[in-house]
Amino acid sequence: MFYAPPMARLITELSRLPGIGPKTAQRLAFYLLGQDKQDVQRLADSLIEAKEKMSFCPICGHLTDVHPCSICTDASRNASIICVVEGPSDVIALEKTREFKGRYHVLHGAISPLDGIGPEDLRIRELLSRINDDIKEIILATDPNIEGETTALYLTKLLRPLNLKITRLARGIPVGGDLEYADEVTLIRALEGRHEV
Amino acid sequence: MFYAPPMARLITELSRLPGIGPKTAQRLAFYLLGQDKQDVQRLADSLIEAKEKMSFCPICGHLTDVHPCSICTDASRNASIICVVEGPSDVIALEKTREFKGRYHVLHGAISPLDGIGPEDLRIRELLSRINDDIKEIILATDPNIEGETTALYLTKLLRPLNLKITRLARGIPVGGDLEYADEVTLIRALEGRHEV
Repeated sequence: MFYAPPMARLITELSRLPGIGPKTAQRLAFYLLGQDKQDVQRLADSLIEAKEKMSFCPICGHLTDVHPCSICTDASRNASIICVVEGPSDVIALEKTREFKGRYHVLHGAISPLDGIGPEDLRIRELLSRINDDIKEIILATDPNIEGETTALYLTKLLRPLNLKITRLARGIPVGGDLEYADEVTLIRALEGRHEV
Repeated sequence: MFYAPPMARLITELSRLPGIGPKTAQRLAFYLLGQDKQDVQRLADSLIEAKEKMSFCPICGHLTDVHPCSICTDASRNASIICVVEGPSDVIALEKTREFKGRYHVLHGAISPLDGIGPEDLRIRELLSRINDDIKEIILATDPNIEGETTALYLTKLLRPLNLKITRLARGIPVGGDLEYADEVTLIRALEGRHEV
């Protein structure tokens, strides 16, 4: 009742976004109404365009506007290493390192019995179908939490008989982090993973 | 280069919003691409609709979809009191109290020489043109910061000769606040404004 209906609808739609509560949604709405019409139009267009053009790569499952995605079709990349991640944003995070030159496989989630997500809900069948004699290594780069670890364990058991090199990302204290503030589990992993200098 | 062009455009547009940096914009973009197409369409539509239908009330300057706005045309409200605020969100904040039953005047800013905003950039001429014999009180409800105080001072000098009651909102320690954490200026104002119980 405090807002005119178009304003109320905009605030409602904005507050559906993750991490955006009613106060932030109101602030964004007032900001947007103060912008030029073409700026608002451009935001609306970019939403529609991204939703229409972006979909999942049929091979790796990454978000892409070409099918298969540019990573899967890039002949300069090492096709013998597949890095398994939970979501498309993990692909982006790894690509930003500019270190990994293999290919990806996006699971679209992690095993989470509490949320009713089992192995059959993930793109595991698609992963198995990609494995052939050319694949030498599978990097299990799921998140370092319970669901991610469970998924990595499940995949390890599943892939073990295939005679592949199976690796996990190193766990330890983050670069730039503070030893005294590292949690115990991370410190234990850092100790376990210690290496000679 | 890490994102496909439609995704990059969406992230760019989202990160233009206030308080939304590149990381949050990326998170929002991934979230939106995971939503149903009609949900994204609804958000885009609400943006366009709000921008098209909402504009400023010719009388008070509040954001509205009807002209004049519902507050200016509400005969049950006290037309003899005008509450002067900096922006439409201040109107909403005061309306939410359900205590003020007068009308509003939105200045669309505050005097700020550093930002090059002078009195002529605000809706002060429109305020003066609204003042007639029926107006008994002007509440200066600009923000309690330097710009808001400057604007209130300017308006006080301008309105003084018109023989009106001119009031300011009370300053003091906020309800639910902690005395020891109140800043000195606020405490001084709270002392100055003390009243018998």
